[in-house]
Amino acid sequence: MTHKVETSWNGNMRFDAMVSGHKVSMDALPEVGGENSGPRPKELMLASLAGCTGMDVISILRKMKVEVESFNISVEADLTEEHPKHYSKMHVTYLFKGNNLDVEKLKKAVDLSQDKYCGVSAAYRKAMQLSYEIKIVE
Amino acid sequence: MTHKVETSWNGNMRFDAMVSGHKVSMDALPEVGGENSGPRPKELMLASLAGCTGMDVISILRKMKVEVESFNISVEADLTEEHPKHYSKMHVTYLFKGNNLDVEKLKKAVDLSQDKYCGVSAAYRKAMQLSYEIKIVE
Repeated sequence: MTHKVETSWNGNMRFDAMVSGHKVSMDALPEVGGENSGPRPKELMLASLAGCTGMDVISILRKMKVEVESFNISVEADLTEEHPKHYSKMHVTYLFKGNNLDVEKLKKAVDLSQDKYCGVSAAYRKAMQLSYEIKIVE
Repeated sequence: MTHKVETSWNGNMRFDAMVSGHKVSMDALPEVGGENSGPRPKELMLASLAGCTGMDVISILRKMKVEVESFNISVEADLTEEHPKHYSKMHVTYLFKGNNLDVEKLKKAVDLSQDKYCGVSAAYRKAMQLSYEIKIVE
């Protein structure tokens, strides 16, 4: 299967991409000629990872009949010092909130996403160090 | 340097990420429990690449005093058949439109981005095959 994204330049540093039929704008900061009208493109890599693994986890939890009150994903990434400045390391923190959550089931859902289903994790793991942890708030 | 993106689950398959201070929503298609209220997370990888290299190219062209009328970037990616379904190959097409464009300068700007500046390309190149071409419309 092939995916395609068309992106157009809209003056200064502004680029608009059509992603699965939705417009995603990207822009740079004023100090490098942009107007900060959208996110930095490189940082979208972190959102891509969070959304991919998040959708896996929430689907698996639904099948396991595990209900969470809230679910947040934090992705932190280290950038190399030298050009081309790229991410050399990412760490994902899965934060679940709920009553009497079954830790083993949460762990299983996250492991399944990271090991078996999440294609963004699979690609990034070939390019950098990728680690993750689970935190639970009752 | 460290970048951080916080993403929260907002029911069904909807996830909202805060990327450089801008909300980026992601969602799945109705057939897998979503409402298609935002792009698929994996496809954001393609927008990230287009925006990253696009900003490099337009900055370099500005320094070279090359003016383009329009600039579009198309990214096509092949997905593996097996889980975890990830991109094994990407191809970037840079499409420039303008009068009397200097092909060598356009080529130089694109090569500089791909070889030296674009951190998204640098990361993806470690994980998959990455190729690119330039097209010019007068």
